[in-house]
Amino acid sequence: MRKDNCIFCKIANGEIPSKTLYEDREFRVILDLAPATRGHALILPKEHADDLYDLPEDSAAKAMRLARKMGRIMEERLQCDGLNLVQNNKEAAGQTVRHFHLHLIPRYRDDGQNINWKPGKPSDEELEAVRELIAR
Amino acid sequence: MRKDNCIFCKIANGEIPSKTLYEDREFRVILDLAPATRGHALILPKEHADDLYDLPEDSAAKAMRLARKMGRIMEERLQCDGLNLVQNNKEAAGQTVRHFHLHLIPRYRDDGQNINWKPGKPSDEELEAVRELIAR
Repeated sequence: MRKDNCIFCKIANGEIPSKTLYEDREFRVILDLAPATRGHALILPKEHADDLYDLPEDSAAKAMRLARKMGRIMEERLQCDGLNLVQNNKEAAGQTVRHFHLHLIPRYRDDGQNINWKPGKPSDEELEAVRELIAR
Repeated sequence: MRKDNCIFCKIANGEIPSKTLYEDREFRVILDLAPATRGHALILPKEHADDLYDLPEDSAAKAMRLARKMGRIMEERLQCDGLNLVQNNKEAAGQTVRHFHLHLIPRYRDDGQNINWKPGKPSDEELEAVRELIAR
C-alpha cells in the first residue's frame, strides 16, 4: 500500500529520483542526502509502514538481512572502520519522516560524529521494578 | 559457540545474572544497567558473534523480529512515546562489548537524550561518486 503525500513512498517506488544503492521487489536502499558520514544510507520498504510497530514482522526481518548484506558491501567498498544501525520510531525518538527507515551509518576513525547517550545510574530496586513491569 | 572471557556470552547463557526481560533458545533480552532511559534493553544472541557482520543472517533476522515484538510490549507497558533501535559495530562505531547487541531505547518526551548526528552537505557529484562505488 502507498500512502498519499509520503515522500519515502514516492522515493521507494521510484516516483522521485534518489541515489539508489540497491533495489528489489520489497526494498530500496538510498543514500541519505544529509549524511552523517560518507556512505550513510537508508533502507526503505516499498510498502508504506509508519514505523517498526507498523511494519509486518517478515519485512522487519528482511530489512535486517538487507542491513547485514549492505553493511558488508559498504565495509568492503568504503573501507570504513565501523557501522551504526539506527532506526527511530515516533517523533519523541527523532523520527522525522513517518515511513519506516533504517539508517546505515558507516563510521571512520575521527569522523567527528558521536552517536550516543547519557548513561543513567538506576538502583537495583528501580531496575527490578522496570524488569517486572516489562517481563510480567 | 561460546567465546572465552566474553561477558555477554556469560550473561546471555545465564552464567552471570542479569535483569532478564525475555529468553528463548537463541536470545536473551536484558535491561542495560547504565540505561539511556527507563526500560533501555539489549537483545543478545546466546551464540557468540562479534558484530552484525559475524552474526548468521538468520539470527540477524530473528533479532529484528524480537526487537519489534519487545518494542510493542515496551510501548504498552512503559507507555513510552517512541523507541530507538541502535546497533553498533566495531570500536569506531562505539561498540564497547564485542558481542553483537541490539539496543532498544524507549523514548519519552523531554527525556533529555539526543541520539543524533551532525548532517553533512555533500554535492551531487560527491554523492554520485559514493553511489557508484557502493552500487557497482
